[in-house]
Parts: sequence; C-alpha cells; structure tokens
Amino acid sequence: MAAKKSGVKVNPKQRDKEVSKALEGIGKEVAQEIMKSQSPNVQIPVRSLSNITFNEKQKQLQLGNAMSKRSFMNVAHSRKFMQTMLVTSWINKELVKEGITTSLRDMYYALKRTIPGTKENTVEEQGESDPIVIDLETMVDVLREELHLNADVRGRVVGNVVIKDRGDKVNWAKLGSGGWSIPSNIENIEFDSVDADYILLIEKNAAFERLHEDKFWKNENCILVTSQGQAARGVRRLTSRLSQEHNLPLYIFTDGDAYGWYIYSVIKWGSMNLAHVSDRLGCPNAKFLGLTMTDIDTYDLADYTIKAKDVDMKRAKELLQYPWFQKPEWQSEIKMMIKRGYKAELEALSSKGLRFITQTYLPDKIGNKDFLP
Amino acid sequence: MAAKKSGVKVNPKQRDKEVSKALEGIGKEVAQEIMKSQSPNVQIPVRSLSNITFNEKQKQLQLGNAMSKRSFMNVAHSRKFMQTMLVTSWINKELVKEGITTSLRDMYYALKRTIPGTKENTVEEQGESDPIVIDLETMVDVLREELHLNADVRGRVVGNVVIKDRGDKVNWAKLGSGGWSIPSNIENIEFDSVDADYILLIEKNAAFERLHEDKFWKNENCILVTSQGQAARGVRRLTSRLSQEHNLPLYIFTDGDAYGWYIYSVIKWGSMNLAHVSDRLGCPNAKFLGLTMTDIDTYDLADYTIKAKDVDMKRAKELLQYPWFQKPEWQSEIKMMIKRGYKAELEALSSKGLRFITQTYLPDKIGNKDFLP
Repeated sequence: MAAKKSGVKVNPKQRDKEVSKALEGIGKEVAQEIMKSQSPNVQIPVRSLSNITFNEKQKQLQLGNAMSKRSFMNVAHSRKFMQTMLVTSWINKELVKEGITTSLRDMYYALKRTIPGTKENTVEEQGESDPIVIDLETMVDVLREELHLNADVRGRVVGNVVIKDRGDKVNWAKLGSGGWSIPSNIENIEFDSVDADYILLIEKNAAFERLHEDKFWKNENCILVTSQGQAARGVRRLTSRLSQEHNLPLYIFTDGDAYGWYIYSVIKWGSMNLAHVSDRLGCPNAKFLGLTMTDIDTYDLADYTIKAKDVDMKRAKELLQYPWFQKPEWQSEIKMMIKRGYKAELEALSSKGLRFITQTYLPDKIGNKDFLP
Repeated sequence: MAAKKSGVKVNPKQRDKEVSKALEGIGKEVAQEIMKSQSPNVQIPVRSLSNITFNEKQKQLQLGNAMSKRSFMNVAHSRKFMQTMLVTSWINKELVKEGITTSLRDMYYALKRTIPGTKENTVEEQGESDPIVIDLETMVDVLREELHLNADVRGRVVGNVVIKDRGDKVNWAKLGSGGWSIPSNIENIEFDSVDADYILLIEKNAAFERLHEDKFWKNENCILVTSQGQAARGVRRLTSRLSQEHNLPLYIFTDGDAYGWYIYSVIKWGSMNLAHVSDRLGCPNAKFLGLTMTDIDTYDLADYTIKAKDVDMKRAKELLQYPWFQKPEWQSEIKMMIKRGYKAELEALSSKGLRFITQTYLPDKIGNKDFLP
C-alpha cells in the first residue's frame, strides 16, 4: 500500500481499513502458497547498512531495493516466520480492527505464551517481537503509529496554532506555562489554523521554558518546540508535517557538540535505524541555528566551554565521515571542534545574562540567517 | 519566612516580594555582623541523615532542628560562605526581582567568573552552586520554584479540571491525545474547577495513553496523571495540591518491584534528599493500588514475571528496613518479593487482554478498595 503523505487528509477509520487490508494481504499470500503446496514465505526489505543510502536530491537517508526472503520451510527462518505471522495477525485483529493503541512492551506481554502441545514459547523476549514491527513498517509502508503501536513520548510545543485532535480543539497559545505534550501518534491531528513565520526546535527544556516565559514565540511569531534531548518520533513527525504542510522554515538549536549536531542530523536527514520512514519523519528543509564553534568566538564563550571527552571526539570524527555532513560549512565546524577539543552547552549563553538568548543571540542569528545547512 | 501552604491563595508578585525580603534579610544580618566587626556567618539547617526523621503522625520525612554555622572567617568555610552570598544575591536580583525563571545549569553558567584581582573562580562546577539552592530552600523555607529555579520536567495530566495559569484558562478535558505537560512550578496555578472523585497516578506513560484512549478518566470521573518514571517535583507538587486542596483520594499504580514501590514511597512520604519540603511535595493520603505480589496470584500473572536482579533484591531489602514501610501489609509484600525472587511490570496485565486494565483490574481494585497503606 502507499505511504500516507504529509498534507493528505485521510479519515482515520478509512486509513485503519486500508492498513488492515494490507496486513490481511500478507496472510492471504501465505495462505495461497500453502494451498498450492509451496513453501510459504514473506519478502522483507533489507534494513542493514548495505541497503541504506543517502539520497542527495531528496536529502534523506533511504532504504535501497534489496529484499530478503523469510521462509517457513527454512529451519533457520521458521521461528521468525511464525512470529511474523503472529505479530501481523495480532496487530490487525487486536489493535487496528479494535481501535486500540498500545506499546511494544505491552504487545510483547500480550503475545507471549506457550504454543499448545509444545514447550516452545511464541516469544521469549521483547527483542524478538520489536523488529517484526519494523519489518511491517517497511513491508506495508506505514508508520508504526498507523499500526496502533505508540513510541515513547517526550517533547512540548507552544505557538499560535489551533489543532483538532480526538474531537478537541486545542489552542497551543492558551496552555499556560505547561504547553502541549507531543504524543507519539501525529497522524490524526488536523491543523485548524497555523499562524507562524517559522518553527524553532530547542534541544533542552530549560531553554524552552526560558523562551516561553519571555513570550518569545508571541513576539517573534514562531512555533516553539522542545525535543527534550534526542527527538522522539512524535516530535519528528510533528515538525515534519508542520514544516512541509505549512511551508515553514525549521531552525534547530542544540548544544554545540557532536551529540547536539547528531540530533539535528536525525531531524533533517533521518536515522539509519529508521531510514525506511525518512520521508515521513524527516525535515529536509531544517537549518542548524546553533550552537556552532563559530558562535563561541562571536559571542566570546571560550571561558564557558567544556573539555571534550573521548566519546565526544570519537562521535565528532564519525560525523566528519557521514555523506550528509560533507558541506564545507559543517566540515569546518566539526574540524574546529576536534582541533580545539572542547564543546559548549547552550546554557553557556546565560553567562552573558539570562535574556541574552531571547534579546540578542536568537534575533541576531535568525535576522542574519546565520545558519548551517 | 513562612512556607506557603497548600490552598492559601497568594498573589505571585506579592509572594516574590516576600521571598525577596527574606533573601535580603540574610544579607542584612551578615552586614550587621560586619559592621559590629564580628565574623559574619549564616545558620543552615543540617540535611544529613542524622537530622532526618520520620514523623509518624504527619506521615512524612522531615528535617530535625539541628543547625550548622557557615562562617566567613573559618578557612574551611570561607569559599562556601562567599558562594552562599553570591547565589543569594544573584537569585534575589537577577531572578526574583526581574521576574525571570531559569535552571540550575543556567545559574551555574551565569555565576561562573574569575574574581577580579585573583585567580579564583566564583564556582568551578555546578556541584558547588546546586547545594546552595537547597540551603536557601531550608533557610528561607521556600520551594526552589519560588526562588525562580525550575527543575526538570516530566509528566502529563488529563481530567475534568480547569486551571488558570499565566492568564490562560486550560481545560484538561479538552487537550486531545496529548494532555497537559506538567511544569516544574505549580505555585501560581489556580484550580478554577475540579470535578473528580479521585486521582490516579500511573508510573508509565504507555499505560496512561491506553487509559486515556479508553476515556477511563471520563468514565470513572478521575484525574489521570503519569509521572513517566520517578515523579518530578512538578508532578509531586501538583498531586499534593490537588489531593489536599480538593480532598481527593490519590491512588498510585506502578510496576510491582522495589523501584515502583519507591516511587510510591517518595510521593507519599517524601524523600531523604528533599525531606525539608515533604510538607509541600508529599501526599500523605496516597494509597498504593498496584502492582502487588498478591496481584500476581489474584490475576494469574506468574508466567509474566521477571527474575529479580541483585540490585532489585538489594533495594527490596532496604525498603524492608525503612520506618515508613513497617506496616504489616508492606512487610508481607516485600518479603514475598524477596522470597519469590521476581518482579512484575504493569504491562504484564496486557497478557490478559489490552482492555483488562481498564475493564477489570482497575475497577476491581478501586471498587474493593484493595490498596496498600
């Protein structure tokens, strides 16, 4: 089936029917093979590194075309084949058709049992059932959330946006100090009105709260998001939908270190683990606002840097090699970090005063379009 | 000054003035001592284990009356004395008087500098400035949030509650799938209307989402909270205020292990680290709903338990000794866990079906008042 693209409005119940039909299609093919006395098998896109490429034009990590075959009659595959059928059937019958959403952990418990007449358990550990959900994401070309399996949640948002979600109209501008909790499943959210010039995504919640307190989003007419660390799927899908459906620039503001830059990398280009859904979670128009090594010079922050640890240096050297970090601006920044052997947290800007971020740093960087690609 | 008690409505600006006056009081006393050519010093309540007691009547961990003296003229104290003055003055002038809120990390960066004419830095690491904030919490008897220093945030809430926060009216029943993000600072939130029979706090977000999807809070007329692990200060203060100001029972639902039981313990009785604010963060009326070891028998979950690790056993043996876990029901549960050598996650209930929690387990336990004290 076709992936649901950003901006295409689909009735959730209609979408459930499509997903259910696709899952049943997997079972039907297997049934036909059995009826023809053939060895039943399923074809699954290969997700190993060898089949992951960086698409320069679409600026995204993507899966290639390599497929692998999982056969019931192959002793090495048969347990996994059984689990594939079990998970596919269970998701269809217990989640999609019932209109129930749950977590991977709950799914594992719900599936675990001893197969009657044997001493074999369906699954022994969650590590067996989780990867099959990713198999299904690639086989059926859906998001895990469309299979009614939610991911961990983190992240908050505020701004001049009104959404419709489960029958409620939620105004992100009227949520007090708390903001709106970003859920895992963004598929059924409708953007009723969006009034913003850009989206600003901040790695750290403390900086988000500072900006929220200063009404930065109101004064600058932007949507303010915090990922609270590495961006969860919900945060990635929300910023992807908002920036693409409403043609909004997206600026990312993280610590000035390899970890922060990697957060940017995942939001913009996608990740190796989830290369098969880069088109729906990725934000190819994202720009990196800061912190950069150059910021440390511009804003005289050298006294507030932290000595890089071995793991920071190792991570930076890895970034240097990634095809999507080959732009000269990034090469220069990463090499500067390695040469200097230090990193800086975004809190370092507080050494210039607590309103420096909202009154000087952000207006400067955004006004001058001082971004990394 | 007096701690702000639950239910007492105080104008935030008025409260800021009181806090500011109390902070200035510390400086004034020191100034008077200097004018009298005495060694300036401050008196700080002792927070070590020796001064922490369990108040049986109030069911709370509390600080005793022991005080320590921090003197400028004592070489062992003088650096810390300097830092105490610096932090006190900075919080008063840059935060409370300016109406700015920030994090401990930002404060550390804002304070760090070389003292003119010396090679001495005001602070070398955050570990030097953080404890002074706790000193001030105890000296002035305020919450850290009233000093305008926010803690990390985690946790979400839904229910039939309307609050006023920063001029916004937020209806927790109309927030779609996301719910309201619980902030760190709950002091200035007004409860406009509260329509609920009880509060249910769940450790794990996935279970919260499942209950939210089933509209459990609507059907059962309760307020649903997830702490997303160990309860953050904001979650503790919110449930403390809601349960005390609106006389609502509070039921806690965690994994069936020493870690989950400790989450309950902190919410109900307070923690050693924050014994000085138990009266404002604690919820002495909280009851433990589950998971218990007895639940594992009642609901036939033994096949879905997990072998306890050494650290689980060690933690359980510690719980057994705490004065607040001496009730026979708890002693029996903890001993059962140690004897059986296993634990259970709340997701184990999903082995009985995905609606078992909402349709059977919770109505059973709440209907029969099957709680631990």
